[in-house]
Amino acid sequence: MAPPSAIDIVHVADNMDTVIPGPLTVKGVPARRAKSGKFVGGTAALGDSDFFKGPDTGKPKAKRWDHYLSVESKSRQPSSLKGAAKYLNTPGLISLGGGLPCSEYFPIEELTLKVPSPPHFSEKQTKQSGTIVKAGKYDISEGKSAYDLSVALNYGMGTGSPQLIRWVTEHTEIVNNPPYADWQCALTVGTSSALEQAYRMFCERGDYVLSEEYTFSSAVETALPLGIKFLGIKMDSEGLLPESMDDILSNWDEKARGARKPHVLYTVPTGQNPSGATQGVARRQAIYLVAQKHDIYILEDEPYYFLQMQPHTGPDTPDVPPPATNDAFLNALMPTYVSMDIDGRVMRMDSFSKVVAPGSRVGWITASEQIVERFVRHNESSNQNPSGISQMVLFKLLDESWGHDGYLQWLRNLRLEYTRRRDIIIAACEKHLPQEIVSWNPPAAGMFLWLKLNWQLHPAASSKSISEIEEELFLSAVGQGVLISRGSWFTAERSNFIPHDMFFRATFAAATEEKMTEAIERFGVAVRSCFGLE
Amino acid sequence: MAPPSAIDIVHVADNMDTVIPGPLTVKGVPARRAKSGKFVGGTAALGDSDFFKGPDTGKPKAKRWDHYLSVESKSRQPSSLKGAAKYLNTPGLISLGGGLPCSEYFPIEELTLKVPSPPHFSEKQTKQSGTIVKAGKYDISEGKSAYDLSVALNYGMGTGSPQLIRWVTEHTEIVNNPPYADWQCALTVGTSSALEQAYRMFCERGDYVLSEEYTFSSAVETALPLGIKFLGIKMDSEGLLPESMDDILSNWDEKARGARKPHVLYTVPTGQNPSGATQGVARRQAIYLVAQKHDIYILEDEPYYFLQMQPHTGPDTPDVPPPATNDAFLNALMPTYVSMDIDGRVMRMDSFSKVVAPGSRVGWITASEQIVERFVRHNESSNQNPSGISQMVLFKLLDESWGHDGYLQWLRNLRLEYTRRRDIIIAACEKHLPQEIVSWNPPAAGMFLWLKLNWQLHPAASSKSISEIEEELFLSAVGQGVLISRGSWFTAERSNFIPHDMFFRATFAAATEEKMTEAIERFGVAVRSCFGLE
Repeated sequence: MAPPSAIDIVHVADNMDTVIPGPLTVKGVPARRAKSGKFVGGTAALGDSDFFKGPDTGKPKAKRWDHYLSVESKSRQPSSLKGAAKYLNTPGLISLGGGLPCSEYFPIEELTLKVPSPPHFSEKQTKQSGTIVKAGKYDISEGKSAYDLSVALNYGMGTGSPQLIRWVTEHTEIVNNPPYADWQCALTVGTSSALEQAYRMFCERGDYVLSEEYTFSSAVETALPLGIKFLGIKMDSEGLLPESMDDILSNWDEKARGARKPHVLYTVPTGQNPSGATQGVARRQAIYLVAQKHDIYILEDEPYYFLQMQPHTGPDTPDVPPPATNDAFLNALMPTYVSMDIDGRVMRMDSFSKVVAPGSRVGWITASEQIVERFVRHNESSNQNPSGISQMVLFKLLDESWGHDGYLQWLRNLRLEYTRRRDIIIAACEKHLPQEIVSWNPPAAGMFLWLKLNWQLHPAASSKSISEIEEELFLSAVGQGVLISRGSWFTAERSNFIPHDMFFRATFAAATEEKMTEAIERFGVAVRSCFGLE
Repeated sequence: MAPPSAIDIVHVADNMDTVIPGPLTVKGVPARRAKSGKFVGGTAALGDSDFFKGPDTGKPKAKRWDHYLSVESKSRQPSSLKGAAKYLNTPGLISLGGGLPCSEYFPIEELTLKVPSPPHFSEKQTKQSGTIVKAGKYDISEGKSAYDLSVALNYGMGTGSPQLIRWVTEHTEIVNNPPYADWQCALTVGTSSALEQAYRMFCERGDYVLSEEYTFSSAVETALPLGIKFLGIKMDSEGLLPESMDDILSNWDEKARGARKPHVLYTVPTGQNPSGATQGVARRQAIYLVAQKHDIYILEDEPYYFLQMQPHTGPDTPDVPPPATNDAFLNALMPTYVSMDIDGRVMRMDSFSKVVAPGSRVGWITASEQIVERFVRHNESSNQNPSGISQMVLFKLLDESWGHDGYLQWLRNLRLEYTRRRDIIIAACEKHLPQEIVSWNPPAAGMFLWLKLNWQLHPAASSKSISEIEEELFLSAVGQGVLISRGSWFTAERSNFIPHDMFFRATFAAATEEKMTEAIERFGVAVRSCFGLE
């Protein structure tokens, strides 16, 4: 072999130029992939984040959570059949072991998608000049792709496919770069399911889970049949109050409460459902400190994270210019809990539902290795892993077609769409709602406007309960032709909770802009009628 | 209006001709659909079997199972947000209620599939002359299809979409025609998940579930962390023995067992995993009678139901001609438990995994209205419903492209493929295995050959345990380059079980035919070597 020439040296230097030693960036992805070696993505291949993560130079390992794991979770054993998978690496081995059907009998030869070509994201542009992406049955062996239908249509492992795990791991590192060494990702069949699994993993019947005073009603209703109650923490316009959380925990009386001190916090930090509140940086840090003080495990539910909008300026003030680049966009995002999680006390739940499509039924968790392992054991004996067809569609869209760069462009476009929609509903509220009765904070993220009703001005305020007046207004709104959610549906506590305020939640995600404005107008009529204003 | 003319009367008579008053047949489907009125399949539309079932003339209603429902299941309440859905039928209503994203932001404009054109099912034929089926975003409003991407990519209801519920309800009625009035179907994200939900619905910690002595290991391993143990019933070549089941139940001693008398039977009646056994008609009837006698609820897990093969004839006997028509095929199938279930004591779990593709993560249950309702409440707060993308792919394949007729043709083709594969593995066993050591029954259904080892002939039979010899043979087989599953992985009871026999399970589903034969040859070498035959 010839000695290295100057050209070789230049070549090496070139390579080193693209190797990013710090946190992963979009630009660093190709070098990272090249460095991680041959990608193994065949039938039921292991989808392990560790294959795709960066070197964890100097990061501490996560704390262990054995003291909080439920009897159920602790007793989960690896599947005996899946345990035999280790022998599958033996060269030349023929398996008569697992009952995996032969791909010959999968009746889908090709799957083709038409998707937007960044940055032309509108439906009209996609119709005219969308990109066609195609998945064949044997693309892997034919060298056409890292994923194919023969693999996606067969059984997979409980983590999800390595094809999609690679993408979510890279995305998570780019966005969150968790500050401990042994973080991992695993796919979920959506956050509703991940949350149910988390309850079963961390709680026993009789336990309390802490959350915002008003919270995602399904989170509460998923917990209740499991014998788990929610306990609401007081909120302001930035969401839950750390002092109130500390107060509840510091003064916990097991006997009076009939339950051990809570050890789990469920929170939606960004564009909270239903209040629309977004926790600021200082708020997040303060809450994390309280969690450390009381050794609380945090379930971070972040479906609306990328729907952080432009500041609301109102009709007479010019719009603030949006971030001009993906980097500027990433820098402008709120820090996530998992990004400040030096203890590994956070399970972050990400979802494609609000930013790609709910029908994919694919999301993912990010947590420490111990927690991800327990979660995956549960996957193996329940939902197994998300639909391979969904995983294929997301892979073709996010990895092969858009890449991380295109996806961030998509998110930037989407947040501007939501900004526009929010501004329309707020303009409608300003125009059509009686502001002596109805008030609101323009949300900085998410899909929801939280309307506070000055119910004390209702003519029957002294004789009727808040709940009765809320129901009257709800039905009056339906009578006017608008469905708007009652605030009481979102109370964390379903018994012994005495509301002091009255709220309604309106979404600006679903209806067309004209309909949205008309709906608010109708709601205005209902409010005026109920409150005897005309 | 003109009085009815003779032509009108003829027209009515024509219509009546196609209305099938008896059980639904494939030919009766168009008339049934026409009769069921306008199909409603928009965003989050209700998928209720009752819309699509035939008239239940004279059938009794199912028994109620309140006495068996778990604390968890009994306490499930309908979701408050989903409860508001009833107002969505109000004409002209605008919803600001649910946080459903606008379909404008779903980045998939078109999805196209290439699928086999019945009866040309081979990969080669599909490549050359497959059918192209296309799903657009707004096919419903454009009058092109009953299902579109704007719906499939959004949230759905806990039953699954009406598009696919219609298909599985019709299919279930054609195949099973349950003999009680209030049966329904609901989609699942696969049977592993449905089974976990069923355990949580019917059992408490400490309960026993009955099953075959050797059973699907994941069924056991899913139950164990929930505190539920399996109790094995003795088996013969037709699977579990009703007398043994009756004996266990008649002599149940709560104190000695430390548990209440079991009330749930888990069974795989057809092509049982791992034994390959198929219960005959009389066996099924006898088991159902025992279930009635002891008020047992039956979980009927039937992934291999349509893999009922042609009789095994051996090399020197001509093949039995397969059923020539779909009707003959349906008539030749074993009766299912749900088809004889006059009490409504069966939850049948169907799966697309073995007959279409495991990666779809879609299956369905059939059970009484009470049980389906509880199951759907659980769906709503966990996996919600299967991937809409999977549902769309199955709808395009099964409903729009193949129809019931084409699907039955597909199943007939598939069972012949499995018949061929079974005959190949048996020929290989006859040729390569020492029959004084290894014996088997040719399976009548499924994917598995259950090999019995005459372990008493092992040179160390008097000094080593069955388990040690089993392990030695397993590792010897791996050493020879074949992975074959150990029988002990499939024992229903994981402690206190003393095996008398030694088994290995080989699947004929996965490997190519050449590899399968080679694998059996290798296993033969391993057996001979372990048993000191050469």
